[in-house]
Parts: sequence; structure tokens; C-alpha cells
Amino acid sequence: DPTLKVFSLNSNRELSEEIAKEIGVELGKCTVSQFSDGEIQINIEESIRGCDVYVIQSTCAPVNQNLMELLIMTDALKRASAKTINIVMPYYGYARQDRKARAREPITSKLVANLIETAGATRVLTLDLHAPQIQGFFDIPIDHLMGVPILADYFKEKEMVGEDLVIVSPDHGGVTRTRRLADRLKAPIAIIDKRRPRPNVAEVMNIVGQVEGKRAILIDDIIDTAGTITLAVNALKEAGAKEVYACCTHPVLSGPAIERIQNSDLKELVVTNSIPLPEEKKIDKIKELSIAPLISEAIIRIHEHKSVSTLFD
Amino acid sequence: DPTLKVFSLNSNRELSEEIAKEIGVELGKCTVSQFSDGEIQINIEESIRGCDVYVIQSTCAPVNQNLMELLIMTDALKRASAKTINIVMPYYGYARQDRKARAREPITSKLVANLIETAGATRVLTLDLHAPQIQGFFDIPIDHLMGVPILADYFKEKEMVGEDLVIVSPDHGGVTRTRRLADRLKAPIAIIDKRRPRPNVAEVMNIVGQVEGKRAILIDDIIDTAGTITLAVNALKEAGAKEVYACCTHPVLSGPAIERIQNSDLKELVVTNSIPLPEEKKIDKIKELSIAPLISEAIIRIHEHKSVSTLFD
Ligand SMILES: Nc1ncnc2c1ncn2[C@@H]1O[C@H](COP(=O)(O)O)[C@@H](O)[C@H]1O
Ligand SMILES: Nc1ncnc2c1ncn2[C@@H]1O[C@H](COP(=O)(O)O)[C@@H](O)[C@H]1O
Repeated sequence: DPTLKVFSLNSNRELSEEIAKEIGVELGKCTVSQFSDGEIQINIEESIRGCDVYVIQSTCAPVNQNLMELLIMTDALKRASAKTINIVMPYYGYARQDRKARAREPITSKLVANLIETAGATRVLTLDLHAPQIQGFFDIPIDHLMGVPILADYFKEKEMVGEDLVIVSPDHGGVTRTRRLADRLKAPIAIIDKRRPRPNVAEVMNIVGQVEGKRAILIDDIIDTAGTITLAVNALKEAGAKEVYACCTHPVLSGPAIERIQNSDLKELVVTNSIPLPEEKKIDKIKELSIAPLISEAIIRIHEHKSVSTLFD
Repeated sequence: DPTLKVFSLNSNRELSEEIAKEIGVELGKCTVSQFSDGEIQINIEESIRGCDVYVIQSTCAPVNQNLMELLIMTDALKRASAKTINIVMPYYGYARQDRKARAREPITSKLVANLIETAGATRVLTLDLHAPQIQGFFDIPIDHLMGVPILADYFKEKEMVGEDLVIVSPDHGGVTRTRRLADRLKAPIAIIDKRRPRPNVAEVMNIVGQVEGKRAILIDDIIDTAGTITLAVNALKEAGAKEVYACCTHPVLSGPAIERIQNSDLKELVVTNSIPLPEEKKIDKIKELSIAPLISEAIIRIHEHKSVSTLFD
């Protein structure tokens, strides 16, 4: 179908190649570079007039650069008369700034939604938003995919299923996601219940649920500095878990993350390529799964006006 | 006046201090930092409810970072119930991408205007836009200041005025600006008339006007890689100019600029602090003038609902 065009910006070149291959198209011709002073320069090198354009870009680090690439590309596509501009953001940066937790805070994830619409996007496709409410920050259609099936399939292949397993949420916020993985692996759940007995006293990690003698799989949407997850590993080990795995959709892995993971009792960390791992983060303990089949199937369904939500049935 | 608040982001801290001092206020309390993953974190540490807020930020390099700081700050101020949000951008980045010069180019300076309005700005104050048409990209009031009087005053103090001087435009686009400086220094003008005799043949630098035996002052709005300006210096010297000075409002000075300036026959380059010079660019040949008196006077006039344009009479 010559009206379907897929373009890659700079955040996820490999993933974009994979997606284009699965869909059976060539990536659109386009150079995304910088002028001498650091301003972004975009040249779209083929006509996209009247086309349905899909632009693949995660707003992972360097987040401001990646976001501006996306906005400028959207502006260029709009002015070049694209029929629809579909933003494929496997990782939605600034998602944790989704509410005023303190006085005078910005709500940057709403700002980002506004910026994307202002630039001219007509649809957004994303994966595991930190808060599903971010869907409501958009006034254009947004399709929200889930990484859990991909993570579940990996553990199923390893025959990690059933009652000698326990799926663990590292905090109260992630219980729904934990339940989803547990259902697919036919395993029970547990929750790490952090609380601070008094101000300025270290948090106590209490485990709600049965973990002794079991293999535990921690699940989160984002693993950033890996502080929460490695403390959770310790708590699970102390409570008698036999082995501890962890998985997440978005491996932000900033600051001390790799060192912490390396030095922890974690058996394996399973992640997706919504954020690509640079060479220095590709360590044996981290297993990377591809979201290309999921995203390409979603793009095809959107293009053919078919339901995307049934992807998860 | 307690309803007038001035905040600085990260691009121009020193200039902002100067401006606050001239106005006679303390800079607003606010930390602008980064989370571990590079996302911008802003904490406004005093109430601004009902206030007229002025935010000082040039979108110089790192341009995408500085622009996002500005947008996120604007979002935070809007949600914190500022009465007006006045964006003071001494340097407006992405101004050179102001039209589709080739097919499928973005018009990033229009995009930036839209982003600033979307974030919630109510007014913009800026200096020497690369193209004055950018004023029309905004639907909110914009005050446009000129750097020429500041540059002119410097040369007047050096008693560089009159007929043994010639003010030179390095290209056709800058003749109006050149005329303005020439009027203030009571000097004639000349224009460097570049043309390419045939494709893939080096440009010829032809000088329109009388420069022999004179002291020449080149003027431009932006000096970026300094290629144009140092070639112009050579052409002027070859045509018999005694000494060559250059001046500009915005010292972008990227890539080979400093080396080119250092190795050129340029006597002195006079710039403003619309873009601050980092230590490694502070060389003897470059003289930095402050725009703090101009900007602070403009802020006071705006705050008192007085005319800003009369600043140039
Ligand atoms: N990039 C970031 N890194 C770390 N913390 C963040 C980041 N962005 C926002 N936050 C903070 O994380 C909190 C929200 O996280 P959560 O409670 O997990 O939804 C808010 O209080 C934010 O101030
Ligand atoms: N940051 C930049 N550095 C160098 N050239 C640029 C930059 N931004 C835009 N341009 C190009 O400069 C041209 C406009 O410059 P001008 O003719 O001086 O207005 C356009 O063709 C742009 O593609």
C-alpha cells in the first residue's frame, strides 16, 4: 500500500527497521541531523502528500532532543500535506510528571500532549503509559498497547508458570499490572508494602503474600535508577524467595542502575526495546525482547481501520 | 512593586542577575535541575499567584534543553495562577528556519511560537529576530527590541564616527540593519555582494561601495560559524580597508568560529550577552556588551503599560 509510510527519527533506529520489515515497507527517506549550533535539521526526501504517515520515536534520553525531533518532523509532515500523522511513541517521556504532587509543579506530561497536538499529530500509539490517565491528556485518538503479553511469553517459554512462582509488585501503584502478568503465568501475586514508621527513619519493606521457597518475578513499568527494584530483590531474598527475576517494559536505566543491577542478587532482568540499550548497558543479566511484532501489527490494524484493543484478547 | 516577579532559567543566569538589580527586585526563587534520566525538574519556591511574571531565557545552545525549560516553566507558572507570563527571550533560537526554502522543510520558528503560546505565555519580549516576520508567527503581543543602539554607543565611545568609517553589510539581507548603525555613526555604508558565477564554482566577493583607506565595521544579527564574516574581512582588506571591526547582537559562535576569528585579520568583534560567552570563547578579540539596561527598561515599561518602541527614539 503506497499510502502507508513509516519514518524513523533518531531514538529507535533498529526497532524502526524491524517494524518496517514486519510491515513489508521500506523506511521513508529522511535525514535528521543537527546544524553546527545544535539546532535540529530535518529533510524529508520523498513526497508524502496524501499519505498515512507513521513516525517512530521514543522520548527517552536525550529526552528534550528526541521530543523536539518529533515535533519538528510533525511540523514538516503537516506542511508537506500528509493525510494523517500517526506518532508511534513506544516510550512516552515525562510521564512521571503527570500531576501536581507539590505546589507550583508543572504537569509536563500534559504539556507534552499539548505540544504534540499543536505540532499537528492526528493520532498517537504508545505502550504502557506510566499512568493510563495520560490518555485523557490528548484530544486526538490514542491507542495504548501493553507490554505484559510479551514479557509473559518469555517466561512461558522458560516454563516459568504455576504455583511455585510468585509475581511481585514493587509498590502499591503496580498491582494491576502484576495481576495481569500473574493471570498469564497462572501464578499468585505478592506486594511489597513500603512504609516509613516515622519521618526521617528508613523505610520498612514488608511483603504482603507468600514468597518463601518460590521463584519471584518483580514487574514494573519503568526501571530508572533501579533503587526500588534492587531493594525489593533484597527484601524477597530475606523473606526466603529461592530466585528473583525482574521485568519491565521501559528500561530507562539511568545513573547507578547498571551497577546496582550487576551487584544485586537479581537472576535476570527482562526488558523490551521501547528504549534501546546502548552498548554499555548490554550486560548478561539483562534480556531484551522486541516489541516490533506488536507495534507493526498495531500499525497495520490502525491503517486498515481494525480494532487494536483485540490485540490483547 | 510586589506583583512584579523576575525568574531566571539556565541560559542567562548572569544577565538575569543584572536585570533584577537594575529593576530593583530579587530574582524569583526557583530551582531548575534534571532528574537522573535527564528530564527537566522545576520547583518554583515562592507564590506567584496574581503576579506579572517575567521569565528570562534565551534559546541558545543547548537549544532543545533551553526551550523545554522555558515551556515547562511556563506550564508551571500558568498552573500556579500567574496573572501574566512574559517570556523574555534575548535570543530566539530556530529563527533561521522561518520559511520553506526547500520542499518538505519544517518552519521551526513558527512551531516554536506555537509551542510557547500553547504552554501559556501571554507576551514575548525579544531582541533582533533573524527575520522581523517572526513577530507575525505569534498571536500574543510581542515586543521586539534592537541591539543597534548598544553597538553604536560602544563605537561612539571609541570616537569611531564619521566619514573615514564605513559600515558594511556582509550580505544583501542585512542592509536595513547596516543603515541603522550607519545613521547613528554618521558613516556611509557598503555591501558585500556575493555571487556564484557558475554552479560549483567558488563565490566571488564583490564590494558595492567605497572602503579603500577606511575603517570598516561589519554588522550582522547572528555570527554562527563565522565563515561569512571572516571571508568578508578578507575581501575588505583586499579592497584596501585600513582596519576591520565586526559586530553582532547574537554571538552563536559554534564549531570553528573562535578559531576562525582568532586567525582572521579582524581587529575586534563586538557582541552582546543575549547569548553568554562560555569561558573558552572569552578571547581578547571579542568585546561583550550588556543588554541588561535595555531589557530592564523594557520590562519596567511593559509593567507600567508604557510604550516600548519609544526606547529607540
Ligand atoms: N524523570 C523523573 N525521574 C524521577 N522522578 C520523577 C521524574 N519525573 C517525575 N518524577 C517524580 O516522580 C513522582 C511521580 O512518580 P510516581 O509516584 O511513580 O508516579 C513525582 O513526584 C515526580 O516529581
Ligand atoms: N541553525 C542553523 N544553522 C545554519 N543554517 C541554518 C540553521 N537553521 C536554519 N538554517 C538554514 O539557513 C537558511 C536561512 O538562513 P538565512 O538565509 O540567513 O535566513 C535556511 O535555508 C535554513 O535551512
